[in-house]
Amino acid sequence: MPTPCDLLLTNAHIVTMDDRFTVYARGALAITAGDIVAVGPIAGDYAATETFDCKGREVMPGLVNAHTHAPMTLLRGLADDLRLDVWLLGYMMPVERAFVRPEFVALGTTLACAEMIRSGTTCFADMYYFEESVADATARAGMRALCGQTVLKFPAPDAASFEDSLSRAREFITTWKGHRLITPSVAPHAPYTCTEEILRLCAELAHELDVPLHTHLAETATEVETSRREHGMPVIPWVKKHRLFDAHVLAAHCVHIDGGEMTALREARAGVAHNPTSNLKLGSGIAPVASMIEHGIAVGIGTDGPASNNDLDMFEELRLAALLAKGAGNNPTALPARDALTMATRMGARAIGLGAVTGSLEPGKRADLIVVDLDQTHNAPRFERDPGAVYSQLVYAAKATDVVDVMCDGQWLMRDRQLLTIDEAGVKSEAAAMARRIDTFLIEREGSVLQKLVAIGGAAEQESFEVQVKVKLTKPDDVLKALRASDEITVIRSVHYHQYDTYFFFDDPSQGRLRYREDETLDANDNVVSGRARLTLTGPSREAAFGSVLLFRSRFLAPAAHSPRFYREYFRPAREREVAKDRRRWLVAFHGVQFYLHLDRLEKPYVGDFLELKSRTWSRRDAQDKAAVISELLRLLGTNPDEATERDYVEL
Amino acid sequence: MPTPCDLLLTNAHIVTMDDRFTVYARGALAITAGDIVAVGPIAGDYAATETFDCKGREVMPGLVNAHTHAPMTLLRGLADDLRLDVWLLGYMMPVERAFVRPEFVALGTTLACAEMIRSGTTCFADMYYFEESVADATARAGMRALCGQTVLKFPAPDAASFEDSLSRAREFITTWKGHRLITPSVAPHAPYTCTEEILRLCAELAHELDVPLHTHLAETATEVETSRREHGMPVIPWVKKHRLFDAHVLAAHCVHIDGGEMTALREARAGVAHNPTSNLKLGSGIAPVASMIEHGIAVGIGTDGPASNNDLDMFEELRLAALLAKGAGNNPTALPARDALTMATRMGARAIGLGAVTGSLEPGKRADLIVVDLDQTHNAPRFERDPGAVYSQLVYAAKATDVVDVMCDGQWLMRDRQLLTIDEAGVKSEAAAMARRIDTFLIEREGSVLQKLVAIGGAAEQESFEVQVKVKLTKPDDVLKALRASDEITVIRSVHYHQYDTYFFFDDPSQGRLRYREDETLDANDNVVSGRARLTLTGPSREAAFGSVLLFRSRFLAPAAHSPRFYREYFRPAREREVAKDRRRWLVAFHGVQFYLHLDRLEKPYVGDFLELKSRTWSRRDAQDKAAVISELLRLLGTNPDEATERDYVEL
Repeated sequence: MPTPCDLLLTNAHIVTMDDRFTVYARGALAITAGDIVAVGPIAGDYAATETFDCKGREVMPGLVNAHTHAPMTLLRGLADDLRLDVWLLGYMMPVERAFVRPEFVALGTTLACAEMIRSGTTCFADMYYFEESVADATARAGMRALCGQTVLKFPAPDAASFEDSLSRAREFITTWKGHRLITPSVAPHAPYTCTEEILRLCAELAHELDVPLHTHLAETATEVETSRREHGMPVIPWVKKHRLFDAHVLAAHCVHIDGGEMTALREARAGVAHNPTSNLKLGSGIAPVASMIEHGIAVGIGTDGPASNNDLDMFEELRLAALLAKGAGNNPTALPARDALTMATRMGARAIGLGAVTGSLEPGKRADLIVVDLDQTHNAPRFERDPGAVYSQLVYAAKATDVVDVMCDGQWLMRDRQLLTIDEAGVKSEAAAMARRIDTFLIEREGSVLQKLVAIGGAAEQESFEVQVKVKLTKPDDVLKALRASDEITVIRSVHYHQYDTYFFFDDPSQGRLRYREDETLDANDNVVSGRARLTLTGPSREAAFGSVLLFRSRFLAPAAHSPRFYREYFRPAREREVAKDRRRWLVAFHGVQFYLHLDRLEKPYVGDFLELKSRTWSRRDAQDKAAVISELLRLLGTNPDEATERDYVEL
Repeated sequence: MPTPCDLLLTNAHIVTMDDRFTVYARGALAITAGDIVAVGPIAGDYAATETFDCKGREVMPGLVNAHTHAPMTLLRGLADDLRLDVWLLGYMMPVERAFVRPEFVALGTTLACAEMIRSGTTCFADMYYFEESVADATARAGMRALCGQTVLKFPAPDAASFEDSLSRAREFITTWKGHRLITPSVAPHAPYTCTEEILRLCAELAHELDVPLHTHLAETATEVETSRREHGMPVIPWVKKHRLFDAHVLAAHCVHIDGGEMTALREARAGVAHNPTSNLKLGSGIAPVASMIEHGIAVGIGTDGPASNNDLDMFEELRLAALLAKGAGNNPTALPARDALTMATRMGARAIGLGAVTGSLEPGKRADLIVVDLDQTHNAPRFERDPGAVYSQLVYAAKATDVVDVMCDGQWLMRDRQLLTIDEAGVKSEAAAMARRIDTFLIEREGSVLQKLVAIGGAAEQESFEVQVKVKLTKPDDVLKALRASDEITVIRSVHYHQYDTYFFFDDPSQGRLRYREDETLDANDNVVSGRARLTLTGPSREAAFGSVLLFRSRFLAPAAHSPRFYREYFRPAREREVAKDRRRWLVAFHGVQFYLHLDRLEKPYVGDFLELKSRTWSRRDAQDKAAVISELLRLLGTNPDEATERDYVEL
């Protein structure tokens, strides 16, 4: 008497990916209420409401994408081949600040689901903002996901402070916990974007609500170096110290970890998501995957966000994982095809905390499966001598487009390459409209050096006017003597420093010029005691001249948080020039007016000594008055105002 | 008055890949007699016999696969995740010896062409046997190729000696030279599979007939180390010394070359084919591509043969090239998308010597082009701010299956994803039949340790019978004294050596056991003076026993050219055991019979001293006679034949 079931898949070459790697050359799979109830030569044992003929094709578990930021499909291809910081701070974050809203997140997630379903993924681990919109869009698409609400120490698109995002996370988890498709989680972004307190509070929240914690760990060598320098230890021990592993952790990347850290991860039962494309594309390195697996860590494979990949194709990703492990270790036997496929299925599911639910075709797990057609020219011929050859076919030659049918939780999401739960054309058209808006935003910004500065500085435009004059000196010591001898000049304070300027010039002169200025302050013995860097954007021309005294306007002034290389790549100047000088500076009062008095020795280019006088001003009338005082001061210091040069140092 | 032309492609987003990287957002392309006559906003200038609407899709040059072995599609997925030598010597070469005939080559090439056309490749550089069959099948498929007839110092499937293959090459080149699609060439396989003379003769032939020369150079670190050891210089200077660069060389791989070698390659105007998947998969390393390009070398991208890839997908390959260059240099700005695409088109065409003919869409070149549909979910949305973003889309997100139409030399090879020049179903079915035959061959071979030995040894089965006896000694010096004192024993010669044996045991005892034996011969001062390694396959059991004297049969005996690791991976024994002994051996004559007399000290496992006597035999009667003599000899040497052990050393 056959057992009743909802659906029976027949005539299937079943690659179960169970822990004995059972393969059924001609098998069947019975499903009831979304669960797998039997797999194997069981067709005759079941009476199904519906039967589906697999036509002898491969039936295997749906792939598990162990780390992504699904909504970032909408930023795919926006900016590529850039330094990590330019890409992140110059493009991703400003655009996210301007565009990421719940509707953006929902749209991007739906687009991502469409792409993932098409390429055979049924489950993914996500981390983004407005994660309830990710969860909702994913559940509507019928996919399974671990959804992590981001928490970080900076203001985020969905929260003004980390306390806000933490309470968002609590609410999100409470609302979604117990959903059949969605497992909510909290996602402290990374150790370097969180405080110790945030890490601890997130772990406590995950522990209290019994959900996984998703984070980025040890992605770049710089992150590890910084951790060693600031905390005296690498990343894993540091987060362990702050009790992160009180939660079940899914750690993305782990590119730069050592054997001891691997042991710590295994002891913490943490899962790792390996993201080979992203790690290569961003130049982060090659994760020691084979070694992690030897250490007993569950390592899954992720695409990372589509902005750093640039797609969500797990077939590409698992092939790259298999290839890269061999290349990195000069060992063609490293990470064989079957192991790579395990990472993308059963082991990946375990890594993200869903090992009991998905990742293999076994009774008791959810019916998350795909049908793959290996009868493709790029996969012909097929050898049958070795039953394990199917893993090699799936890993080294199959393409995402060979996936024909996709089921998640017993529901068909794709049949014969037609999506059933998503209006694909509608989503693509909405995504195109969003891209137009982002294009417009960036075209406007890219058109203006000032706008680009504001985008990365997070600072508002600040204007500053000053009058200035500059006279070349043959005997600078005479000026020094005159300064010291004069009763009319009061020295308020003085300082001595080296100043290194890098000027960026642009093809469009109306953009002005940008100066990256680095000061090294010197003590009485000429030892460097401190340093700082600033950016100044100067208008294209002087505003006015009063004799030899000139009126200038600085349109922007801000601390320079990045290196000249960063700014060079971000602004792409048409040309640049360096100026270095030794400067002694006095703040003086003369006839009731405060001036900066500079004795400058120009060292690069070497053009000798100068006296420069500067004063802040706020109106043309005030500027004119100060110009008269400056002329007097110049004479008092033994120089001739008529010999003043109008050229700036960078023009000499 | 419009100019007449054969075909006008209209409504195309044209990515010309010319040296100014011209892109026409809405352009047309005019073709006459297979040549491009105009590209750009020229639709109105031409009156075409036929017009083709590109529907706004990308039109770009057909991809150039700069290095492959096309017929090896028929070995795709046959054996993966193995050591390079096991893969090559254990699988590829034995199967090639048994199967590679002109029909095999033609079938494999046609299958390869089908796959390459489907994935947007219109031109490839090939190297194989029976290259005239490659050329013929390629021309029938309508593709363009550089076809290299292999020459090497070993017998090949198509030639008994290198002189044969060289005259094959001459005939092949003479026959095919001037063909519009096929450029014939000579392909000395690699420096380590050729003699200096072969390299020189091939270069002379290429120079004389004015065709390119295709070879593998500096693929593995081992190759370079061997070259340094044997020739005192790395690979490039060595082949230069032997005048290889008198020809226009296409050098595949160049994974392990330094700056000086890059300069030499550039000066020789040699092209390089970079094969990232194959180099990773076989654990060969990561070629310094960015540095080669900086040195001014034309570097193309190749898939290598589909047996080490396992497909011919140039979209995957160029994406991997772009990613790997970044990962290897920890530099996300290395090899940006546009450069990677240049390698796969214009620069690749130059590398293989066809730069004047194909690789970009310019008037005067052949009409080798593909139409790509970027309106795919995995490539949505599309940003238009940066006109260069199309390179990023094509490289990082596009798939081979996005190629819709393919044209080579003005002839459509694929329209709307239907192949027009190849009976795809027929080819796949013939390939499947060939796979069945190869399966059968390998199943038979894999079923027998002896067959596997013959497959790699290239030697025939050799049988050897011997009688032997073994007695444990407490005072080995007494035996020595008796030997020296006896008048009846004549010592013919003697030797002293260390013997290290590794025994492989198999689950099926009828397979016998395999011994890897390494001897280190010692001089009078116990210094090692020479070493050699041999393989012995012993039958499952003794053949007969005459008292304590046993009759054994060795089924195979051959020099062991490979390491124990090689044999371990190739034979995959169920278990193994090591035995090490110090052996003093005398060849003695006694009662007219020659015996080997061994005084053995078993060191691993440590079980003490033994006297062993052995003699070759040819019949049971002879064996029985010798057994009687052995007993006498044992007594003479002061030991008791009744105390002989029947167990072999490995069984102690």
